[in-house]
Amino acid sequence: MTLSVHSDEHFMKQALKEAHRALELDEVPVGAVIVGNKRIIARAHNLTERLNDVTAHAEMQAFTSAAEALGGKYLKDCTLYVTLEPCVMCAGASFWSHIGKIVYGAPDPKRGYSKFGGLLHPKTKVKGGVLEEECSELLKSFFATKR
Amino acid sequence: MTLSVHSDEHFMKQALKEAHRALELDEVPVGAVIVGNKRIIARAHNLTERLNDVTAHAEMQAFTSAAEALGGKYLKDCTLYVTLEPCVMCAGASFWSHIGKIVYGAPDPKRGYSKFGGLLHPKTKVKGGVLEEECSELLKSFFATKR
Repeated sequence: MTLSVHSDEHFMKQALKEAHRALELDEVPVGAVIVGNKRIIARAHNLTERLNDVTAHAEMQAFTSAAEALGGKYLKDCTLYVTLEPCVMCAGASFWSHIGKIVYGAPDPKRGYSKFGGLLHPKTKVKGGVLEEECSELLKSFFATKR
Repeated sequence: MTLSVHSDEHFMKQALKEAHRALELDEVPVGAVIVGNKRIIARAHNLTERLNDVTAHAEMQAFTSAAEALGGKYLKDCTLYVTLEPCVMCAGASFWSHIGKIVYGAPDPKRGYSKFGGLLHPKTKVKGGVLEEECSELLKSFFATKR
């Protein structure tokens, strides 16, 4: 498959690369990138174990990093690509960032934000299921090794 | 009023000190401390403007700092004291930290977590309204200067 360099799948592949970096560190393999003006302005992967910090989800680090790249804390013209549906914390952070769009891979029926209503900013668009199988398989194989 | 050094009011006074530090920096005046074993193990104040980072709420910094102090990311025997009811992001972070108790000052009907059901960890206890007036007045006077 050839991917357009501006397609959602292209950027999700980049988020998956980040997830693989988390995996190499034995972290729950979740990765994220933030895209502004068709360019990746932030990349991050889950580091909660390495940093001993529950707030170190891929998305949280990506928000911090994107704001630094832009020189402003609002991300209304940006898109977050993340391999797993964001949790409540990350959804809450996305609200404050006014992020324009969230694209995620695998759904998270247990800890994903979407089972609670109204957590996102009203202007934030959402698209789920991009490269879902690949994102999901990575997580499943990680947890399989932990049992 | 003489406060027991282990009372909720005593620790909320310490959180209020942190909120005043935020005010001095022209930040929305919210402060937090985390107490473990009757001792303050983390203090923080809102730094979202200074750090240009929506994730830099007082509570988020306090979670990170408390985990570092304890050498473990779970805070199940700790209490968070915060001058304002936590938002969705901070409630989500508190879930991951398994924090034992949250004590807050002023309610936040607009952006507080409590209007959404089920965001906290099932084992987290909550007490609101501690030094509510003082916590609330500080915020009101800050926003009055911004209008």
